Amino acid sequence: MSNKPSLPKGTRDFGPIEVAKRKYILNTIETVFKKYGFMPIETPTMENLSTLQGKYGDEGDQLLFKILNSGDFLKDVKDEELITHNSKLITSQISEKGLRYDLTVPFARYVVMHQNEITFPFKRYQMQPVWRADRPQKGRYREFWQCDADVVGSDSLLNEVDLIQIYDEAFVKLGIKNYELRINNRKILQGIVEEIGAPERLIDFTISLDKIDKIGKDEVIEELIDKGFDKLKLNGIFDILFVQEDSTIFLSSTKPRFIYNISLLQISDYYKSSKMFKEGVDELYKIGNSLLAVNSSINIKMDLSLARGLSYYTGCIFEVVSTEGSLKSSIGGGGRYDNLTGIFGLPNVSGVGISFGLDRIYDVMDELNLFPPTITSTHTKVLFCCFDSASQQYALSCLKKLRDENIASEIYPDLKKIGKQLDYANALQIPYACIIGDNEMQSGKLVLKNLQSGTQQELSIDEIIILLHR
Amino acid sequence: MSNKPSLPKGTRDFGPIEVAKRKYILNTIETVFKKYGFMPIETPTMENLSTLQGKYGDEGDQLLFKILNSGDFLKDVKDEELITHNSKLITSQISEKGLRYDLTVPFARYVVMHQNEITFPFKRYQMQPVWRADRPQKGRYREFWQCDADVVGSDSLLNEVDLIQIYDEAFVKLGIKNYELRINNRKILQGIVEEIGAPERLIDFTISLDKIDKIGKDEVIEELIDKGFDKLKLNGIFDILFVQEDSTIFLSSTKPRFIYNISLLQISDYYKSSKMFKEGVDELYKIGNSLLAVNSSINIKMDLSLARGLSYYTGCIFEVVSTEGSLKSSIGGGGRYDNLTGIFGLPNVSGVGISFGLDRIYDVMDELNLFPPTITSTHTKVLFCCFDSASQQYALSCLKKLRDENIASEIYPDLKKIGKQLDYANALQIPYACIIGDNEMQSGKLVLKNLQSGTQQELSIDEIIILLHR
Repeated sequence: MSNKPSLPKGTRDFGPIEVAKRKYILNTIETVFKKYGFMPIETPTMENLSTLQGKYGDEGDQLLFKILNSGDFLKDVKDEELITHNSKLITSQISEKGLRYDLTVPFARYVVMHQNEITFPFKRYQMQPVWRADRPQKGRYREFWQCDADVVGSDSLLNEVDLIQIYDEAFVKLGIKNYELRINNRKILQGIVEEIGAPERLIDFTISLDKIDKIGKDEVIEELIDKGFDKLKLNGIFDILFVQEDSTIFLSSTKPRFIYNISLLQISDYYKSSKMFKEGVDELYKIGNSLLAVNSSINIKMDLSLARGLSYYTGCIFEVVSTEGSLKSSIGGGGRYDNLTGIFGLPNVSGVGISFGLDRIYDVMDELNLFPPTITSTHTKVLFCCFDSASQQYALSCLKKLRDENIASEIYPDLKKIGKQLDYANALQIPYACIIGDNEMQSGKLVLKNLQSGTQQELSIDEIIILLHR
Repeated sequence: MSNKPSLPKGTRDFGPIEVAKRKYILNTIETVFKKYGFMPIETPTMENLSTLQGKYGDEGDQLLFKILNSGDFLKDVKDEELITHNSKLITSQISEKGLRYDLTVPFARYVVMHQNEITFPFKRYQMQPVWRADRPQKGRYREFWQCDADVVGSDSLLNEVDLIQIYDEAFVKLGIKNYELRINNRKILQGIVEEIGAPERLIDFTISLDKIDKIGKDEVIEELIDKGFDKLKLNGIFDILFVQEDSTIFLSSTKPRFIYNISLLQISDYYKSSKMFKEGVDELYKIGNSLLAVNSSINIKMDLSLARGLSYYTGCIFEVVSTEGSLKSSIGGGGRYDNLTGIFGLPNVSGVGISFGLDRIYDVMDELNLFPPTITSTHTKVLFCCFDSASQQYALSCLKKLRDENIASEIYPDLKKIGKQLDYANALQIPYACIIGDNEMQSGKLVLKNLQSGTQQELSIDEIIILLHR
């Protein structure tokens, strides 16, 4: 009967201190979301596959965790289909549900299903786990948490301005100073594909461009040529996409002139024939100006090569990268999508959102030692240690008094040696132990031991309460 | 492309006010857990089926949600097996993982896998969703949350005493006054099956007995007879199991004599040949005495017919039932299990735990109107309403000042009529609107409208901050 238990790969247990640290991140982000007027929703872990499939590209569909139908799921599958061993074909017959892959698509579904209860613009946040059957590796898990804030039902760029400020405020509060907020606009990329004579191939273009950090510029160009893009024109484009230094937008109250640089203006000039391109540039200008109005000192880097893999983005896109430590990974991302609810039957509702990646943020903060030292696994202030069952009974009423005063406290439940009981308190970093035996019961003066300093005092339970409330 | 979206049956979306109410319950319970020295852990949504299967009985195995293996899962399944259409046989070849069915078994796995990091006794709490492919009905969902507190590594009955107090403190804090805490002891039931000549059939007996609320006493007896239990002896037993009135344990500081009643003593006498029976009775006595020591006024009902379905319980068992309103459903349960970690290779570790059912508690509180009226969907105190984009830019800096003071506030992002903007504030029950146009920008005096009273004042942004901080 005994077998050594294990966890599915890419999943993790979280012990007390890890949960406390994760909650610290979640609470910090949630506090900012609330301050900016966002309201929480939660959606089910399971969604119908019809809701999920076709929203994340072919690769995304592959990475969905699918739930086997309950009961006799094979009953109605035909023999001739079964023996093809065609897993894809059979999947649709034996599985109807899948695990949430992100929070954006379930949110779009939510908006459509609840459109009559919602006051628009609807500013919602959602902090829940998502699942992807990706190959697990450092910093990439199969179960991980996203913290999303989205506004739907408003075209205004003020939403982008709010979301950028939320990013900054949350990361500053978490102590992550060295991050880079990259910004681009899908309309600029649309202008570029128009310019190279492939106006309808934006997604093909961005899917390849999105791999630039992984496979490098040359391989991206090669992939695009394989896809049939014009080689000569591509080379010209890539020179422009990578004018890194020049294209940095630096917003600062002291240097307002640095907002937009000559290089972007040059590009703007270059593509003046494209309406989309101009719109994209114009939106970035407006966002920059509004950020100046709030006197923001956020570092924003314009990155024309930023593409974001997902197909639904249509306007501004964001990505946040931690730039310190060994993990230079994406810790957030988002963008505007003009018609995400359209796929569920509610067209012409524009939305924009950002996402925080809890697990990556945790890894960065852990490596850089950014968690406050006050985060502890237990809240217990006092452990009662007793010599025998009579003093245990006595301790119970003391314990009750402390708890009635909302002082977290506990009794060591077993009658082990006092040293053993104190080991427990020390291991859990409980600050005080209260030791009770015959003498203490008779005098009503209990021994309160400070486990950090090692000192001890004889105090009544009421005196202990006063001391601990201090 | 457009299809009307829906949710998998038995699952639900939660909107802002529902999330706020659910969090209120979770926070209340969590605060009590912490006060009693319990520490949080979290385990993955997916567990290996080898961890889950065989722990919840045959029926439980049927109710597990199973995850289809990724990739070409049918590749290695033999044709001759496929065409049997034997779903059970094939399942084990195409699915390795399942969704968490409760929090106790994953906790036992956690304890075994992390035994070297854990300080025992380990008092952990865990608040996470679980999934069961049960037939959905009123009060029964396929995704629902459990809030568990368990102690492992201690035999002491003081743990039972703590857990009973946790139940009472949490339900009192939530305002659920009319609940019944039923208590029994599996050892008493073991004594009974010994008495009727079936000492090794405790689980068979309790599985049937557990159905008593659903199918009634007569059907339970019939089922037991079908299982081969002795009819005559059964009838004698059931007379004893249902001495309902007499067997009420009433703990109260004013009536300490009512703790254990004559009827229980009679039963105790009746079965004095059974060591197990006596142990069970003795444990209930001790728990009752300790509760008296803490001067507890908890209503506990001894219910000899309480069985609990799960096979792993070996000592005290608990069940909490809400007794007011239309939903007289179980809102919590638990008990002691002496060897749960044994199935994962760590024998002789006793544990005891309780569980709160978040969703049932929510339904009860919702029906009885027990949620505090202060729970709101938004925290926003002020909505800025602007006439044009110039005043919007002006409002951005006011907004920044409020947010810097941690006053939750937002700007209506679109340039709609002021009436429309105020509609938004009213719908979300935002208490104040701050209206900005040309005059306000010039004078620096903004119109602050109290949306509840309808009154308005002209104030500078600094005056507004002072007013809102009050």
